Amino acid sequence: MDLIALEEIRRLKHRYLRCVDLKLWDDFGGVFTDDAVAEYDTPVIGKQLRLAGRTAIVDYMRTNLGPGTITTHTAGSSEIDIDGDRATGIWALEDTVILPEHKLLIHGAAFYRDVYRRGGDGLWRVEHTGHRRTYEYTMSLADVPSLKFTAGLPPAPGIDAT
Amino acid sequence: MDLIALEEIRRLKHRYLRCVDLKLWDDFGGVFTDDAVAEYDTPVIGKQLRLAGRTAIVDYMRTNLGPGTITTHTAGSSEIDIDGDRATGIWALEDTVILPEHKLLIHGAAFYRDVYRRGGDGLWRVEHTGHRRTYEYTMSLADVPSLKFTAGLPPAPGIDAT
Amino acid sequence: MDLIALEEIRRLKHRYLRCVDLKLWDDFGGVFTDDAVAEYDTPVIGKQLRLAGRTAIVDYMRTNLGPGTITTHTAGSSEIDIDGDRATGIWALEDTVILPEHKLLIHGAAFYRDVYRRGGDGLWRVEHTGHRRTYEYTMSLADVPSLKFTAGLPPAPGIDAT
Repeated sequence: MDLIALEEIRRLKHRYLRCVDLKLWDDFGGVFTDDAVAEYDTPVIGKQLRLAGRTAIVDYMRTNLGPGTITTHTAGSSEIDIDGDRATGIWALEDTVILPEHKLLIHGAAFYRDVYRRGGDGLWRVEHTGHRRTYEYTMSLADVPSLKFTAGLPPAPGIDAT
Repeated sequence: MDLIALEEIRRLKHRYLRCVDLKLWDDFGGVFTDDAVAEYDTPVIGKQLRLAGRTAIVDYMRTNLGPGTITTHTAGSSEIDIDGDRATGIWALEDTVILPEHKLLIHGAAFYRDVYRRGGDGLWRVEHTGHRRTYEYTMSLADVPSLKFTAGLPPAPGIDAT
Repeated sequence: MDLIALEEIRRLKHRYLRCVDLKLWDDFGGVFTDDAVAEYDTPVIGKQLRLAGRTAIVDYMRTNLGPGTITTHTAGSSEIDIDGDRATGIWALEDTVILPEHKLLIHGAAFYRDVYRRGGDGLWRVEHTGHRRTYEYTMSLADVPSLKFTAGLPPAPGIDAT
């Protein structure tokens, strides 16, 4: 078992998740190979979202998860298999997306299936990521009339990334 | 510190959790020793649930967490002690069980205390698992009239397990 | 990469989180250096909370997160850098605080930035912890009239800590 690679891959995914929730889009791009593909199960928009190439992935996130959107992506329970410079990973995800302006909350769970590649520079990157939902629901914040945001509107500026 | 065993035990628990939420009951059985015991704190049914033997554990889950039930079991914060071929583990759990047909949601948190054993085949299995709740609540989905499931009804078929 | 130190630091943080949610205040104190500083982003009370010294940190928690308060602190996605006997760590947090008597629930997410120090006794402790919220909201349980606690009132006594 290559314990160093295992830690590097876990950390790569943790950085991926942090960059999404802090909207650190330039850093987010660094997580992926140039030719990375992302396939997210997004029933709320009625389809499987397929984004091909680092630029497409980053552009989509930058456009769709902008300052008016609060997100948390919590992934754990990793099951990672490493074979030389390639690896696969399963992760359990729970995510919440809140669009305060639309009084909309989307919550769900999914399992990621990722592929990682180690480049000539020795760094692991995401070559393929995708998830499939176990469930997802939407609800209106109007059903919780007492709800008040005490932080996050507008989202806090990004914490400096390491 | 036996880092390899530590990773193997963590992965075992991650597989356990995934098999529950994806309803992969045959794979779920493989997580346990034949004589495994599970003791779950389930105040919602008014008692401590005690299941003795792999078959009893799997049968209970198969019967009670079937296709009409959505579950997420998120466990992290592991504290694992290894002593040769035996190990103990504490994990923090947050779980949600949704019974859409009954418009019921059960949510809570607990701490697991597990015992693991390494068999003659070199594989770690769960010999004893159990948890104790810090809290649990039930609520009716009728209190959230806008709530709509966009995935999970019926639950997605299981992702192929590794 | 010092894998042993990495595991020790992760476990330290897991113990920190467990001690908070189980209200094990004496054990909680053991997580910190004498001169530890904690700076929590707590917009719900309108300020950044700064606690200097182990005693001040423990006293604050003991006073403010007593038996009438239910809490869960779930942190994962660690990104840890070790440099000899000092280390830094980023963690993603999701936390919920419920005050049943006041029918109040506070939920939010944050990123911790911690500093750890290894003492002459070889043990890692938290020298500085702090977090900054990505969002936080409060809501009244009165908006969920069906909500019933089936556990946690009063909080379960602490599980014996390791």
